[in-house]
Order: sequence, then structure tokens, then C-alpha cells
Amino acid sequence: MAEYNVAPLSRLIEQFERLPGIGHKTATRLAYYILSMPHSEAQKFADAVLDAHKKIHYCKICCNLTDSEICSICNDDRRDKSIICVVEDPRDVIALEKTREFKATYHVLHGVISPLNGITPDMIKIKELLARLNNESVKEVIMATNATVEGEATAMYISKLIKPFGIRVTRLAYGIPVGGDLEYADEVTLSRALQGRCEI
Amino acid sequence: MAEYNVAPLSRLIEQFERLPGIGHKTATRLAYYILSMPHSEAQKFADAVLDAHKKIHYCKICCNLTDSEICSICNDDRRDKSIICVVEDPRDVIALEKTREFKATYHVLHGVISPLNGITPDMIKIKELLARLNNESVKEVIMATNATVEGEATAMYISKLIKPFGIRVTRLAYGIPVGGDLEYADEVTLSRALQGRCEI
Repeated sequence: MAEYNVAPLSRLIEQFERLPGIGHKTATRLAYYILSMPHSEAQKFADAVLDAHKKIHYCKICCNLTDSEICSICNDDRRDKSIICVVEDPRDVIALEKTREFKATYHVLHGVISPLNGITPDMIKIKELLARLNNESVKEVIMATNATVEGEATAMYISKLIKPFGIRVTRLAYGIPVGGDLEYADEVTLSRALQGRCEI
Repeated sequence: MAEYNVAPLSRLIEQFERLPGIGHKTATRLAYYILSMPHSEAQKFADAVLDAHKKIHYCKICCNLTDSEICSICNDDRRDKSIICVVEDPRDVIALEKTREFKATYHVLHGVISPLNGITPDMIKIKELLARLNNESVKEVIMATNATVEGEATAMYISKLIKPFGIRVTRLAYGIPVGGDLEYADEVTLSRALQGRCEI
């Protein structure tokens, strides 16, 4: 009623609604919050959106997001360049970096092969990965795609392409999550945990 | 780790985090979504933020948000100008409009008196309301502030100011919400519902 008579406001609500996980009520709350900001703060917000969009692109080597030509991980001399960890998404890099244990490099696919969604192998960064295997002295590729059907299929597909290079291909271990309850683990996870058991 | 190396991205995440109800995880998801948009869409988003901020201001009469001098409700000749419904917030106007039953006008206070939070009567739109009572032929003022301690106190404060004008001042009815369960209603609401009982 009164709402759609104020066009700039409903346009702003509409824009917020398009973001993932933001419904109409949240979008409305956010839009009103934006209106209540001082103008300089709203300007900062809009600038951050455009700035990120303008300056951020893919690293020439690993396809992770960066604002320079080569990302800080690929640029780091202390990193072991002979191991490449292949992930689906830049957020997976952040998750793995949080372990503070992995000191090698990454390759971001930006998606997984998914014929049902029309994602074919040439639409994700597989070519770029194979080019790296040709040029660099890579000894191991760790497939760290998600443990979903598509993630598994993508890992399989890529590992078959890497075989001819004579490079070792590994996959993240399956098992019960730390702190997890056996009672609530599904049977596939449990049987994988049994298969992967190791001596203590 | 990798995250704060990409300054424009972490700036965008920071900006999203400042919005109400948006934590770090959600802000990160939203920022990545913005990055995945085509540039024209990101531009539209930023424009909507700035545009809303630039064009929206208070209605000269009722202090509701509008992009013209006088809001569409105050401008509507079919509206009964002799009744003013006083609310805390523009969102309350939208909620009342949704009933499709209220055909008079509003006055938006933009807050409630709250000494604890440092909000004094002169910081909300009370002066503007009293000015309307002087100029217009108002017969009734409905106090529709929230049923909170501050909302009640504000309603009381304003009604005392209106008394000298000889105008009827009313308050929204208290009672059990439609569809509500008696069992779960608090005792204050129940005793108010009893007091306000009417014949069927």
C-alpha cells in the first residue's frame, strides 16, 4: 500500500531481496536501516559494492579471488608449490587456511561438473589446472571438492585427466567429524570411517 | 588468512556486517554473491542504495517517508483528514495499511520517548503533530504506539499535550491476539482483555 508509493524505497527492498537467504521482511528491515544511516555511510556501502566488483578478479595461477595479478598465496615463497589442493569455491580456501596446517597452494574450480544444472567440464577451471601441471613441478594434487555426488564425480573426472601426468592424486579423508556422535553418523560415513581406520 | 589479503572483499564483508541481523558468515555469503553478479547488476544495487538515500525524506505533513513533498496518503482526497493515527515508525504505517480498513491519516513520530536511551520528547516528531492540530480540523487522535513501556509512556505524554485542544484521544484496544491461545497469554494482557470485553 503505502510501501510501493515510495519508488526508491521499494527498489532498494527489491535489490536486497535478490540476495541469497534474504526474504521480504529482512530486505525491508535492511532498507530502512540504510535510510537511517548518515549519507556518508550509505556512500561507503555503495562504494564497497562497486569497488569489490571492479578490483577483484581471478588469480592468474590458482583462480582464487584477488585484487592483484597473482594472489598472496601463490606469491608466497614459503608455500610448497609442488602440492596443489583443488577446491570448488574461494570459501573453501578460507576454510582450509583456518586449519593453519596446509602450507601448499590451491586451485579453485569455481564450481563442479553438474550435467543436471548444465555445468560441463569446460565451464569450470579444469583447463587452467592442467596447464599448471604442464608448467610447474607438481608432485601431488589433493582433490578437496565437497563430499557430494557432484563433488565426487568432479574429483573422479579430474583425477582421470591427471593420471597421464604421472602425478600422485589424493582425496581428503572421510570419517566421523571431530566432536561428532557415532549415533548420528550415517551408515556411509561410518563404513568409510571403518575402512580408513588407522593404528593409535 | 587468505581473506584479509583481498582488501576490497573484506571491506565489502565489513559493510554487510554492519547491517542489523547480519553476522560474519551471512556477510561473507552476501559479499561473494555480489561478486558473482554481472557488473550491471552490482551497479543497480549500489544505485538503489544511493538513490533511496538521496530521494527519500519525510512528508511535510505526517513525517512518513516519501519521495515527493507530501506523501501519497496525505495527498489522497478520499482519506479522512479529521482522524490522525500516531505511530512510532514508518513500518507501523505499512502494517496498519495492510488491514485495508483504516482510511484516515497518520503521524509518524520516528521513535519513542526513552530517557534511558537519551531520547527526549523534542527528539521525536511531537512538535509537528501539535502544529497539525492547530491548523487542521482534527477530531480524533488515535495513539498507536507499541504496547511497550516506552510506547505507553509516549502515548500518555502526547495525550496530555493534546487534551487542551479539546480533541478526542484514543488508544488501540488491548486483548488476546486473533488465533492466540489463552493458555499462553500473559496475565496483564488477559486482565486488559477482560476489562475491554464487549457484548456479542
